[in-house]
Order: sequence, then C-alpha cells, then structure tokens
Amino acid sequence: MTVGHDAAVADAALLDALVTTEVALARAWASRGVAPQSAAEEISAALGWPQTGPHVHGLTVQTLAAASRTGGNPVIPLVAQLKNRVPADARVWIHRGATSQDILDTALMLIAQNAVAEIRGFLDATVAALGTLAGAHRDEVAAARTLTQHAVPTTVGARAAGWLRGVRRARTRVSELQFPAQLGGAGGTLASFVEIGGGDAAAALPAALAIELGLDAPDAPWHVTRWPVTELADALVQVVDALGKLATDVATLSRTEIGELAEGSGGGSSAMPQKQNPVESVLIRSAALRAPQLGATLHLASALAADERPDGAWHAEWPTLRELLRLALGASAHAAALVSGLRVDAVAVARNLALTRGLIVAERLSLVLSPIIGKDRVAEIVSAAATGDDLAILVRQAMPAASALDVDRLLDPAAYTGLAAPLVDDAIEPTTQEEE
Amino acid sequence: MTVGHDAAVADAALLDALVTTEVALARAWASRGVAPQSAAEEISAALGWPQTGPHVHGLTVQTLAAASRTGGNPVIPLVAQLKNRVPADARVWIHRGATSQDILDTALMLIAQNAVAEIRGFLDATVAALGTLAGAHRDEVAAARTLTQHAVPTTVGARAAGWLRGVRRARTRVSELQFPAQLGGAGGTLASFVEIGGGDAAAALPAALAIELGLDAPDAPWHVTRWPVTELADALVQVVDALGKLATDVATLSRTEIGELAEGSGGGSSAMPQKQNPVESVLIRSAALRAPQLGATLHLASALAADERPDGAWHAEWPTLRELLRLALGASAHAAALVSGLRVDAVAVARNLALTRGLIVAERLSLVLSPIIGKDRVAEIVSAAATGDDLAILVRQAMPAASALDVDRLLDPAAYTGLAAPLVDDAIEPTTQEEE
Amino acid sequence: MTVGHDAAVADAALLDALVTTEVALARAWASRGVAPQSAAEEISAALGWPQTGPHVHGLTVQTLAAASRTGGNPVIPLVAQLKNRVPADARVWIHRGATSQDILDTALMLIAQNAVAEIRGFLDATVAALGTLAGAHRDEVAAARTLTQHAVPTTVGARAAGWLRGVRRARTRVSELQFPAQLGGAGGTLASFVEIGGGDAAAALPAALAIELGLDAPDAPWHVTRWPVTELADALVQVVDALGKLATDVATLSRTEIGELAEGSGGGSSAMPQKQNPVESVLIRSAALRAPQLGATLHLASALAADERPDGAWHAEWPTLRELLRLALGASAHAAALVSGLRVDAVAVARNLALTRGLIVAERLSLVLSPIIGKDRVAEIVSAAATGDDLAILVRQAMPAASALDVDRLLDPAAYTGLAAPLVDDAIEPTTQEEE
Amino acid sequence: MTVGHDAAVADAALLDALVTTEVALARAWASRGVAPQSAAEEISAALGWPQTGPHVHGLTVQTLAAASRTGGNPVIPLVAQLKNRVPADARVWIHRGATSQDILDTALMLIAQNAVAEIRGFLDATVAALGTLAGAHRDEVAAARTLTQHAVPTTVGARAAGWLRGVRRARTRVSELQFPAQLGGAGGTLASFVEIGGGDAAAALPAALAIELGLDAPDAPWHVTRWPVTELADALVQVVDALGKLATDVATLSRTEIGELAEGSGGGSSAMPQKQNPVESVLIRSAALRAPQLGATLHLASALAADERPDGAWHAEWPTLRELLRLALGASAHAAALVSGLRVDAVAVARNLALTRGLIVAERLSLVLSPIIGKDRVAEIVSAAATGDDLAILVRQAMPAASALDVDRLLDPAAYTGLAAPLVDDAIEPTTQEEE
Repeated sequence: MTVGHDAAVADAALLDALVTTEVALARAWASRGVAPQSAAEEISAALGWPQTGPHVHGLTVQTLAAASRTGGNPVIPLVAQLKNRVPADARVWIHRGATSQDILDTALMLIAQNAVAEIRGFLDATVAALGTLAGAHRDEVAAARTLTQHAVPTTVGARAAGWLRGVRRARTRVSELQFPAQLGGAGGTLASFVEIGGGDAAAALPAALAIELGLDAPDAPWHVTRWPVTELADALVQVVDALGKLATDVATLSRTEIGELAEGSGGGSSAMPQKQNPVESVLIRSAALRAPQLGATLHLASALAADERPDGAWHAEWPTLRELLRLALGASAHAAALVSGLRVDAVAVARNLALTRGLIVAERLSLVLSPIIGKDRVAEIVSAAATGDDLAILVRQAMPAASALDVDRLLDPAAYTGLAAPLVDDAIEPTTQEEE
Repeated sequence: MTVGHDAAVADAALLDALVTTEVALARAWASRGVAPQSAAEEISAALGWPQTGPHVHGLTVQTLAAASRTGGNPVIPLVAQLKNRVPADARVWIHRGATSQDILDTALMLIAQNAVAEIRGFLDATVAALGTLAGAHRDEVAAARTLTQHAVPTTVGARAAGWLRGVRRARTRVSELQFPAQLGGAGGTLASFVEIGGGDAAAALPAALAIELGLDAPDAPWHVTRWPVTELADALVQVVDALGKLATDVATLSRTEIGELAEGSGGGSSAMPQKQNPVESVLIRSAALRAPQLGATLHLASALAADERPDGAWHAEWPTLRELLRLALGASAHAAALVSGLRVDAVAVARNLALTRGLIVAERLSLVLSPIIGKDRVAEIVSAAATGDDLAILVRQAMPAASALDVDRLLDPAAYTGLAAPLVDDAIEPTTQEEE
Repeated sequence: MTVGHDAAVADAALLDALVTTEVALARAWASRGVAPQSAAEEISAALGWPQTGPHVHGLTVQTLAAASRTGGNPVIPLVAQLKNRVPADARVWIHRGATSQDILDTALMLIAQNAVAEIRGFLDATVAALGTLAGAHRDEVAAARTLTQHAVPTTVGARAAGWLRGVRRARTRVSELQFPAQLGGAGGTLASFVEIGGGDAAAALPAALAIELGLDAPDAPWHVTRWPVTELADALVQVVDALGKLATDVATLSRTEIGELAEGSGGGSSAMPQKQNPVESVLIRSAALRAPQLGATLHLASALAADERPDGAWHAEWPTLRELLRLALGASAHAAALVSGLRVDAVAVARNLALTRGLIVAERLSLVLSPIIGKDRVAEIVSAAATGDDLAILVRQAMPAASALDVDRLLDPAAYTGLAAPLVDDAIEPTTQEEE
Repeated sequence: MTVGHDAAVADAALLDALVTTEVALARAWASRGVAPQSAAEEISAALGWPQTGPHVHGLTVQTLAAASRTGGNPVIPLVAQLKNRVPADARVWIHRGATSQDILDTALMLIAQNAVAEIRGFLDATVAALGTLAGAHRDEVAAARTLTQHAVPTTVGARAAGWLRGVRRARTRVSELQFPAQLGGAGGTLASFVEIGGGDAAAALPAALAIELGLDAPDAPWHVTRWPVTELADALVQVVDALGKLATDVATLSRTEIGELAEGSGGGSSAMPQKQNPVESVLIRSAALRAPQLGATLHLASALAADERPDGAWHAEWPTLRELLRLALGASAHAAALVSGLRVDAVAVARNLALTRGLIVAERLSLVLSPIIGKDRVAEIVSAAATGDDLAILVRQAMPAASALDVDRLLDPAAYTGLAAPLVDDAIEPTTQEEE
C-alpha cells in the first residue's frame, strides 16, 4: 500500500510523465488549430489523459530502461511504441516537430512539479509542528552549546524557532520555483514547429503545451540555458540543508548522555532494547550529506551545456535531478514525521542546564560584576566555581557590603535568555510577509 | 597598480571589514542611546569611518592570519589590538556584547555585498554587450550543433541571445540577494545585549548595525540558520554557470577548425605565434569547474550547523565563501571583457554551415518531402547526398513533375531558422518585467 | 535479454548478496567448529549456495526496498524472512552474532568485487584495443591542440598512447583494491561472537567469512574506519576519469568540422540522418561529470563516521557507492565498445594538420631560424604566413645564400614529432613492470 | 616567527619552486652534455641552487600574482624576468625547450613533495601518540555508541586503535605516492627538446630533471594524463578523512555532557571561561568538510583534460591542489598536537558507561539468557530495567534455582568487550607488514 516517499519520482512516474507529455503535445497542436481536434482526442483516449499508466499505455519501466541505454535516451524508442498504439490517422501528431530533449526536459519538470508539491506539503506540516513545538517550549530554559560546550542559556523554543525559520525559508524558495515546459526542436529555434504550423502557431505552442500540463510557459527554449534545473536543485538542497540542521540537532540532543529530545517512533534494536535510535534524524542527515554534491553536478552540467545540446552534460542531469528530488522528498517526509512526534524531556533539559553548576551564566557574571569588583576577581570566582566551589557563595562573598545586587536573579539562567521569547513569538507569527 | 579582480575579497579587505564592523557596532550602540555619542565618535576617529585601512587601524594581514590560526578565529586577537588603539573611556564599547561570529559573519556579508556590487557591474556590461552582439548578428545563419554534430540551422544572434538569457537570469538572482547583518551574542539570544542595553535597545540593535553598514536588517540571528550564505553561494554559482556556458561555446567555436569566434585580445604564445588562445574563456571555464563544489561545501556546512555554533561547519565557510566570491568576480570581469571584444568571423560561419553540403536542412526535407514522396525516398536522397551527390539535383529528380515546390528555398538554411529572429528580439528587449 | 551493464549492482544483485552473506556466516561458524555442519548445510540448501536467487530465497526487491525504509536498513526484516525459510534447528545460526552493518558492508563488498571484476575485463579490452590503435597510427602525423588551438604536430598514435597510459594506470589501481569482509558486531569488538563461540573462534571468524565469500580477510573491523570504501571509490573515479579524458577527445575530434575520429556505431538521428553522434563518448562523459562528486560524498561519509556507527554517514554510503559502481561499469563497457570500433579518418587528419598552412611548425622555425636570422625576422615571417603568404617561400627568401638548411624538411610536420613514436612503443610494451 | 602550517605551499614557496625548476632544467641540459656546464653554473649562481629565495631571485609574490592574471599562467612573465638576471651567454638555457605547463606542473610536484614530507612527519607523530594512547587505555571499558545511543561496551583503547588504523592506512597511501617531474614541450612529444639536443638527450632529459629536483622520473609526459594529481589528491583526502573521523569522535566525546575526552590545550573563551573548546578538532573537522569537494574538482579536471592542453581544466587544478595540500598540512599538524595532548577522564568514562544502569550488556543478556528463560522473559527484564528496576535483581529472580550462572560477571561490562584488547595490541604492533 504505502509505496514509500519516492513514488513521485520513480521510474514508473517518469514513464507516465513522458507519455503524458507526448499526449499534451498533440493536444497543444490541436489547441492552436493545427492538429485536428479528433487526432488529439484519439491520442488522449489511446494513451490516457490527463492520467495515464501502464494499464493504458502498456509500456513498462524495463522497456524504458533498456531503451535508454541503446540510444542514449529513452524517447526515441518510446515514440515508436506510442505510435503503434494510436489510430493510423492520428499517428503523425505523436511527437510532432519535437526533439527528444523537449519531451524529456518537459517530463522531468512535470515530475519535479509533482514531487515539489508533495515536498511543500511535508514542509507545511513541518513548519506547523515546529510552530507548536516552539510555542509549547517557549520559556523552557536550556543550555546553548557552541563548539560542543555549554555556553549560555537559551530556550528549547528558541532552538525550535531557529529550525522553523530555516525550514520556512526553504519552503518559500521552493514555492517560488518555476517549472517551465521545454519546446525548442532540434536546435532551439522551433524551426520544425514553424514548418509544421507556421510562425504564429509555433510561437504559441510552448505556452499551449505548458497549459495542458499545468507547467509554466517558458520565456524561451532552455535547452542549453539550464537555470530551471539549477534553481530547482538549489531550492531542493536548501530544503535538505534546513532539515539536516534540525536532524543534526535532534540526533545530538538524543544522545544517551544528553537525552533532551527523543523521536516519537525511535527505531528500536532487537538485540539492544535499551536503544532509542533517532532513525528519522539519521535518514535526514544521510540525505543532507549527499544532496549538496548532487546539486554541484547539476551546476556543472549547466556550465558545460555546450553548443545547442551538449556532449554529456545533459545526460548527467536526469539521474542526478531525480535522485535529488528523491532525497528532498524523503527528507521532508521524515522531517514531518519526526517533528510531529518529537518529545522533549524537561528533566534532562534542566539537568543538563545545571551541569556546569551555575557557570552557564559566566558571561553574565563577567558583564555585571566586572565593573563592580574587577575582571580579575570575576575570573578568580569562575575558576573556583569550575573546580567545585559554590558559585552563589563565591559571588556573595565578593560583593561589596552595600551592594543591592540580587544574586539569585543574577545566577538564574532563566533571567539570562535575552530575546529568546520574542524570537519564538516572531518565528511563529512572522510580522513580515515572507510567506507566499 | 591594478591588483586584479579580487581586491574586494582579499585578506586586506576582510581585515578592513572586520574593523569597520567593530566600529559600526559601537556606532549602533550610540544610535540606540546606550553608548555615549562621544565614544562612538572617538572609535570612529581612531579606527577609521566609514572607510578604514591599514594606515588608520595599523593592523596587517599577517597579524590576522597568524591570529586566525591560534584561536580558531581572527576576531579575538583583533579586538585586543583595536582596544589598544582607542581612548580608554571608549574602549569598553569595542566589541560590546558581541561574539566573534557576529563580527565575522557581518564582515563577510559586507565583503560579499561589495563583491556582488562589482559582479553586478560586470554582468550589466556583459548583458549590454551580448544584446549588441545578438542584435548585430540577429540574422546571420550558422550551424546549430547537438552532441558535437551539425544538426539544423540557427543564427549567431540566437546563440548569443541564449547566453544573454542565462546571464540576465543570474544577474536577477544576484540582485535579489539579501545581505543581513548578524548579531546574536554567544548563543543567538542577544542576552548580552539585553544585559548591556535593555530589551528594547537589544531588539533594535541588529537593524541599527545593519543601517550603519548598509546591510539588510536580519529577521533573526542566523548564527546556525545559514541561508544567507547558501543563497549567496547559489547565486554566485549560477553566475559562474551562465558565464561558463558562454565561455564553453566561445572556446569551442574558437577552435582552429571552427574559427567562428575569436576573443578580441586572444592570448598569444611567444613560441607559437599562430595561436589565438581564447584565454578569457579558459579562465572562465576554469572557474566554472571549481565553483559548484565550493557551493556544495557551503550547503554541507549549512546542514551541519550543529548546536548554537557548530564544531567545524562554520569554520569551513569562510575560506570557501571567499574563494567563491573571488571566482565569480574573476569570471564576470573576464566575461565582460570577452564579450565586448568578441569577434565573429562571418566567412567561417558560412563555410561551416555549408560543410554538410546542404544536409543541415535534412530535418526539413524529412518534414516537407515525406508526405509527397515517402519517407524511404527521402532517406535515399539524404544518404546519397551524404556520400557526395548534389542534394538539389537529387531533390529535383525525386519531385513529381507537377510539384510547385520551391526547391531553392527548401534547401536554403536561412529559410529554416524558425523563431531565431524573434527570440533574439525578445531577449534584447524582454516583454516580461523580469528585470529588477 | 540484454540487461544492461549494471546487473552486477542492481537491487536484485544486492538482495542476493545479502542472502549469500548470511549463508556464508553460518558456514563460517561451522568451519570454525562452532555451528553444527548440518545447520550450515541446511541453510545453504534452503537459501542457495554458492549461488542464490529469487527462485531459491523467494524474496523480492520490493520487499527489500520497503523494508529499507522502515527501519533505516534492509537487514533486520531480511533476517526475519530468512529464518522462516530454514529448518527450525538451524534457524539460530542465521545472522548469528552479527549486526546489520556486518551483513550490509560485506554484501556491498561482494557486489563491488563482482562489479570490479567486470570493470577490469572491460578495461583489459580497452587497453588492448588502444594498443592496437596506437600501433596502427604510430606515425600518422596530426595537429596537437592546446587551449583549443593548433600548437605543434603530434601523432594519432601518441594521443592514443596517452589514453592507454591513463586507462592502464586506473586498471592497475583497481587491481590493487582490497575487498575485506566486515565483521565486528554491535560495537566493533566482536563481543557477541566471543560470547557465542569463544575468543579463538571469534578471532578467526572474519577471515573464515571472507574465505567463504572469496573476499579479503579484514585486518580489523572497519565499521568506522572506511578506507575500504573510499579507496574503492577513488579507484572507480580514476577509471571514469581516464575514460572521460578519452571520451572528451573522441567527442571533440568527432565534431563535424574536425572529423578525425568517428565512433563505429555512431548513434543516428532519424530526423537528421547526416549526424553521426558520438553516443558512447557522450555517455562516458556524462559519467565523468557525475563520478567525482559521488566520490566526494563517500569521503565525507568516511570523515564523519562518528562513534561506533554514525548517525547518517553510513547510510549515505550505500546508494552512493552503488551508483558509482554503476557509472564505472557503464563507462568501461562503453569505452571497450567505443575503442574497438573507433575509426580514424586519415584524410581529415591530414587536412586539419595543414589548416595553419605550415605554421604548425612555427615553434620549430623559432628554434632553428632565430640563431641564424634573428628572432624579429622569424616573427615577421610567421606574421606574413599567418596572413596568407607562402611559408616556404618566405623562409627561403630569408635564409643566407650559404645556408644549407633543408627547408622542406624544416617545414615538414612529420619531421617535428619529437619522441611521439617511441612514446607509442613504450606505451604498448611498458618496460617497467607496472602491470600486475 | 612561526608562519603557520602552510609555509610549504604558500605563494612564496610556489615562486621559489618555479625558479628552482627553471634552474634545474638548465642543469639537466648540462648533465646530458647539451648545455655548457658553465651556463648551468652561472644560472645556478644567479638564481640560487639548490635553495633559492627572494633575496636571490629578487622576485615577489605580487609580481607572480599579477602576471598570472594577464596571461593565464605565471610562467611566461617569470621567464622574462629570470633571463634578465642571468649572464647573457647563459640566458638561452633558461626555459630551454619547455612549455609553461612543464614548469608549473613540475614546480607543483616539488611543492607537493615537500608538503607531503611534512604531512608524513605529522602523521608519524600522530600514529605514535595514538599507539601510546591506545596502549595506555587498552582495558578501560567505555560505552560504544551507535546511531548516537549506547550500544555495548568497548574500550577507550579499542576506539583509539581504530583511529590509529585509519591514520596509518592514510600514511601508507601517502608514502606510496609518486611525484613525477613533467616535461613534454608544447604538445607532449618533446619535439623542442629533440630539436635542441637530439633524440637521446631529449629522451633522457625528463629523468635528468627529476634527479636534479629529487622528483620521480616520469614514464611519459603527463600533461593530459593527470593521475599524478588525482592520486595525490585522493591520498590527501584520505589523510583528512582519517583525521576527521578522529576529530569527530574527540569533539563528540568532549561535549559538556559526555566529557570523556579533552584537548590538552582546549581553546578558552574570555567571556565564558567554563568552556574547554575542542579547537583542534573543530579545525580538523572544518578541513574534513572541505577536502572531498576539492578532490572532486581535481578528478573533474582530470576527466576534462581535453586535447594536448585543456581549455580550463588545467587552470582549475593549481589553486585547488594547493588548497588541498594546505588543508592536509593543517589537519595533520593539528592532529599531531591534539593526540599528543589528549586527556581521558576515567571518571566520566565510567559514569557514562553506567548511564543505562546495566543495560549496556543487554545484547549479552539476550544471547545468554534467552536459551535458558526464553526471549520474551529477557525482553520483560530489559523493559523493567529500562524503567528503573535493578537489573541484577531482575536477572537473579528470573533464573532457575539450579542455575550456576555468575550473574555479576554476566552483567559486568568489562567481561563483554570481546576482542577489544587484542585489537589494540594488533593495531599497535601490526603483524602484517603494511608499513612501508
């Protein structure tokens, strides 16, 4: 039943998208009055529209895979097989005027748009759950850590608010993506389309194709101007980055010694039942270690998009882009699940906060006490406390008799969280209209 | 005199930016009424404002470099030295409340903003020169090449229009970048700033710092929410990609056997004076092979931005980001020079177009003749022409007596350029308002 | 029939390798006298040994894929299913003492070893064909090109000898790889194995497992010491690099304007029958643009192999390593085919060599004539020749009457190929014993 | 005084190496009897031999940098300046027959060899210190962690032994590197050298040059056969990986909550004196996040080494290789310091081991008790213990009256460390001759 997170980009989905793109091309020709309406209808009926599938088009992924190998791309043999499945009079309108790249690029955009819609859904859920989490733990004081060491106090909510900001930013970036159809013919001039339908029809055809498929109308053929691929890649990597940061923190804070967080459905170990593996975090982190290099490959391919179709760079894009979509889909699905089930152990949070026996506010002591008793004296106090003496006693001893300083409050981590609370509030309800 | 394209990101520029950021922080405190105005003025005078430099602050890059090594970052020793240079009463307002990362991140944004301003200038020049080029060669018919082989006709202008679209898109992306100041204190809560100046002043301080420096006000501390770095990186890589595509085509079309293009200032070779090396293209391509992997490193660092300051990821960003800025600066400077001096050899363009002895329009023959004489007959004609027979004679022989087909026009590459001309026009004067 | 080049690393192959590793573990236990021989035999019979497959073990890739998702790795559910398939008394010897990583790492090494054996076969064929090619064209003078421009003469054979050296070096590297079995138990101490079989048996078990599988005996568990993965990756990337260089040259020299080389089975284009696409080269280059970044991911995973099993890095390895194996397999298969069918067009080679009308020997003129007539005079000659004058006449005019210089020989590119011929001979029959 | 770890690869070192290579070429010519011995001596004296430096050659890095930009490489203007510095009669033997790439590639190998010698020294120190560390803590039982969770016991020594194995393997790889001189002339045929000195001298010249410089004799010009660069890169990245794994573990185990390890010279924080930042680890990890992508760039450059000198790929190598050398140098220097000062906190190790209140041996309970009391009963015990009950009591209650099981020993983590001790011994004194 559940087919995993990558159905949208699986081989079967690509095959369907290729078929759908071919049908849409025939429909676009008809919409411009060049192909007979009947041909478009026959093709739609024979190959499935707007949905298709193996039960309609009768093709299999194995065919696709084998065909990809021989000719360098899967479209050429696909076209031959599709023609066999439509009535003879409509046949000429299959792949009419198109080059393989037109079909494959457009089909990849179709797949990408679907995958990104799913990703956005997972990110919406993640953002919502992070908002709830941040709000619920808005004032729960915790140790902030820098370079692995306790530094100053923060709050569980402020940390979650930081995750939220990163994820929301990535979601915004993903929401702004364009998914243009590609139609340029053999050399990017649309000459074949002009020959077939005249200049006006050819000029209108890319947008017509886009409308059929629910894609964006291209401003021009992008056969060797590959920003639609790299901007997509950049946004996907940014998604995985933002989730990777979250997962990195969850994995760290789930450590046996730290224990501030636990995944709801912590993966068990039959042999070691005491373990609560942060499996979602591990899988997200795994994606985060891979995604950037896939993005780099797509940028390289863009830079090396030689001539009017390159000698390798274009072929390097397909598997790379699909793998990147797969990673972003998986990571965002895992993140939505992770965040919705994430448990905060308040006892552990408090225990850890106290681990440095008050020195988590050392920075504050330095700021407040130095003007009163001098830097050197403060340093002595901190040193003594670090080796076991009671910090409150040390501070009180050091204070001038006349001092009205509230030492308890001075040493209270909860009184040194700065703007943590408003940062949470603002993250949950952004005042700027950054949302789409 | 000319110190190359990377002065904006050189070590000396970083040192100046660090000093400027420290001065700006004191000024921001004063602007919020927390620091005395006099302290801000003394610091500004002592360290230089708004411009600084070694003649004012007296520090050297060597100091910076040595200091970076010891403590893991250059700010700690820098602060000590700056304090020595300001009057005693103002000294406390140096680095007041800040953590090293606040200063370094902000200084890097400052450098980046300056570098990006230069890059935009070079891209503007490149776009303008490409527009001129595309317009001047709008109707000059040339061979379009796919997978290294002549495919169909295109125009020199259409090719240049494709470059233009890629560069303009990258420029748009660069123009939309945000360069937020960073101010969060040790744990990202601004607690030290609250302690020093109270909550309202602390809340207003990041924006005040940004105003002093001409940076964007941050919506929140981004100490471990690193999209300001990765979005910058993505845009820079996209710039280098777009220029890399251009340079790849120029290098290819400059080949001795092709000779359609030549760089204005082709690098010579003393030993081999017949060579006209496309040196600008080579240097741009060199950048294009490196930039994507630097971008990947920055994404990795973003995903691994653990805790409230990470254990390695942040340190990986500085040199990587600076090198990426350097590459984008160099590539855009080279591109502006390249495009403005680029020469088109019309004779070579025409000679190459004719190389397949008419078969550059084979696709058109197939489209036009197949319905008349059948696919097989067309294939025979093409085969015969490929082995040396005259294509026009073959076509005429094959046509039915009654045919009124204009064979000369059919075989004229100039009559099979599709929408090349309007694609040029539209690239030069975009109808959509994609410009900023 | 043809299942492509990647059967050795396909999902089905991984599933079989996992089953085979589990069977081998039971056999290793028996070989050390710990498990009853009968249990090992029952397991071997039930699950297939030494060959297994879906007809024996009854498992499907879909099961594996679904299972991988849930628990983060496919071994846990696999073990449950395998136990169901063996007699009750032998069941306990399935997965006895092992952790999932032991099985998965070992299975991946098994797959890798098989894939590498295939790769070596393809490389052997490539080396042999390159030797033949280099020998056959040992003295065929051609233009050497630097920075895209004709520079000096070389030979077709010398160029092929360079390819040969690169491929042979990569083959050597691949031949030296180790494929160690992995067996460490949950924490890399083999404690579970000691508990089950005692210290001596446990100490001998990794080597026993390796013997069963034909793998190398590990010197220690490498659960978080990942050089077996990165050294494999480095060698695979080196293979793809060497083939990428070859393919880059073939693609370039196949250009319509250059035409010195053609792939035997050049991919055709139905619409543009004049094209002879260098499809093998394109596919190899596509792999070459992707492989390095996959290698980078494996190095990152190695560096981030935290603790006794990492929180993401290990999971990032599987798909990356398999994709890299797939690329190396595909590229080497394509290369073997490409080289064996490669055609050299001697006419094009000669035509191109003459393109600079003699100036291909400009470097030689400079060396030989400068001492006689001065540098400036040589420069004048070259300039004049570059604009169309006859080089031989110019040289003869410039020579002192008494000169006995053989101008024809001076200008003969064939007389300025340096050590091209011996470099070919040495490449074909290396004098050093670099071969395994 | 100390100029950091990268003096060996700094700009000044490259400049010196370029000069040294030029001198060596003149000496090589003389050694083959082609150049007069006096010319070689004059050049050696004028430019410095075997050591050179700015006080001898009089050139500056600024000159080099500016020159690099104009012509695309620094050698052309360098040669002009060097000629000015040698007596007129020797001048012709400067750069005699060479192409820029010959000099630059050879100089880079020279720098690399020096840097690698330093790296080996640091790795030797690291290996020695790790051996001492592993031996000293051979039997100190600690928690092994998988997916961030306590799993089973291991020892501090076994963990250190794992680091040692990784570092030693990388050192071996580095030790096996070849650093061939490069000499091929403009097209890789050595034609200019043959012209100048005849075939025999030319054939012997590359080895003669290598001897002068202490480099390896090349088997052939490697101008576009770039394994000397990528094999170097792979080994350097492997070094950084191995150190990165070590640093990752040290950073993790230094966490405030874990505290098992501390760097000797933990970087302090003036504001937060309680912190003991693992600064060496952080800097090593920073290198580990960057090195793999630099390696990828070098592989790409190798694969795209088109023609007889490529149009960008070669230029991408220099800065990338130097940065990678710099990272490996820095990381190995930091590692040597880190390991020699590393402190193990035995109290923290023991405290953490006890954190799961005995369940660190849950795997063992499952193995030992399941056959006696059944799997389900064991699971109940573990569950009860996980929620707070005393594990020893639970186990004793569950045992049959007649059982002679030594429960104390069963629950003792020290009795469940498997082969940890022999793995340490073997790592310290490898029985196989893996060492060079």
